Amino acid sequence: VCIGIDPVVERLPEILRRDNRTDSPGGALDAICEFTEILLDAVADVVPAVKFQAACFERYREDGVEAMYALIGEATERGLIVVLDAKRGDIGHTCAAYARAIFDHLGADAVTLNPYLGREALAPFLERADRGCFILCRTSNPGAGEFQDLLVAGRPLYQIVAGRVGTWNERGNCGLVVGATFPAELAQVRRLCPDLPMLIPGVGAQGGDLELAVRAGVNAAGQGILVNVSRGVLYASAGPDFAEAAARVARDLSLAIDRAREPGGVEAV
Amino acid sequence: VCIGIDPVVERLPEILRRDNRTDSPGGALDAICEFTEILLDAVADVVPAVKFQAACFERYREDGVEAMYALIGEATERGLIVVLDAKRGDIGHTCAAYARAIFDHLGADAVTLNPYLGREALAPFLERADRGCFILCRTSNPGAGEFQDLLVAGRPLYQIVAGRVGTWNERGNCGLVVGATFPAELAQVRRLCPDLPMLIPGVGAQGGDLELAVRAGVNAAGQGILVNVSRGVLYASAGPDFAEAAARVARDLSLAIDRAREPGGVEAV
Repeated sequence: VCIGIDPVVERLPEILRRDNRTDSPGGALDAICEFTEILLDAVADVVPAVKFQAACFERYREDGVEAMYALIGEATERGLIVVLDAKRGDIGHTCAAYARAIFDHLGADAVTLNPYLGREALAPFLERADRGCFILCRTSNPGAGEFQDLLVAGRPLYQIVAGRVGTWNERGNCGLVVGATFPAELAQVRRLCPDLPMLIPGVGAQGGDLELAVRAGVNAAGQGILVNVSRGVLYASAGPDFAEAAARVARDLSLAIDRAREPGGVEAV
Repeated sequence: VCIGIDPVVERLPEILRRDNRTDSPGGALDAICEFTEILLDAVADVVPAVKFQAACFERYREDGVEAMYALIGEATERGLIVVLDAKRGDIGHTCAAYARAIFDHLGADAVTLNPYLGREALAPFLERADRGCFILCRTSNPGAGEFQDLLVAGRPLYQIVAGRVGTWNERGNCGLVVGATFPAELAQVRRLCPDLPMLIPGVGAQGGDLELAVRAGVNAAGQGILVNVSRGVLYASAGPDFAEAAARVARDLSLAIDRAREPGGVEAV
């Protein structure tokens, strides 16, 4: 399980929005930071990884970016693997600047990348054997198929992307992003790429079924997937027990994944 | 002409790197800001638009983001149209957060977007009739063709993207990014989309030929293109006259574009 850190102030527990403190952008960001810190504390022993959504912090200008730096540092100190969900993709020295910002300054262990510009453009990321690159393959949004399902020589584009990323993986640092909302496509990608790690968003609020996604996504050893859950964990309770509730839901998800990846496990759930 | 603001400290004129001030990240960012301010002053009466490269500022953490906010404000005050070259593409409330950050907080007039997730994902940007959306179509990097040239029903993917963006343009706020490094592809896109504005990077340092790009890119009225030039203007001189040199090169480019878009103009250059 990977917990998606993409808090929006309107969804925070009441206790963090007391006394109208979130009416100003500064107060809202403070509440988001307090929420995230408590949450990181609560889940650090339960899950191996968290995925920060850059946009949710960038919308609070330079203060939001500063907060994201601090929170990623705290997550790392707690032993969590940090994925930055930035979906970057640019060219030449721009991509090199993003790679420096994300891997060296921000200290993320892995990043999500957009494949549209090709391997050559993403090289500054792919060359970093010490960091992970999850390339968007089949995204979890309802309209993902507009381009990703277009047939290229009889196969949908997302499968072509999956195949190419397999060849990009010279340093063993590549993975794919495949949404849980499309379990059949997930299974296809796993057949094409038996060994690539997969980051799987879309379980829960977006409608993806956990057991189906796990069964479709695991490799032959029953491993190789990082299932991202965000809202279902972040907002597990609107009360003052939100942190314990989040940890409990995360633990339940881990157990459900363990059951689902056992042979015949899905039927047993 | 649109001037690409993507300064890197190693390329700044000597006079701005005096006394080893750029040895620290803070000093380097200060030099970049001073350079950009002087440059904006020098070109504000010469060109209509500038394109900020978000990565070049994000690499200086929250201070870089703060500087980008300030510089975009200064560009707007000088009457320049500001394009934020962020190449964003994400889903649901994340894309909404990016749209707020880029259009409302940062105050950019237009943004570059990645099409891979489809129209549905980009809706928070596309719905903003008051702001422009330039969608990546055929990018200027050497490896752009890895996916963009894949044939879908006999036509390369970048042409499919161009056609779709034409249908996304209900609010008249869409354009395409097509690199000057591929003039034949540029001409194809113009045939497919006679009316969409085009942002054309890749002239100069990246090797794109200005006259070919202009001739291939203009619409029937000889208009509809924004030719982005970055290094050729930014580093027009390494001496203390860098600002005047940048303005001169920008003016020369504008004149060359005007000549090229006249009937028979290319031959006359």
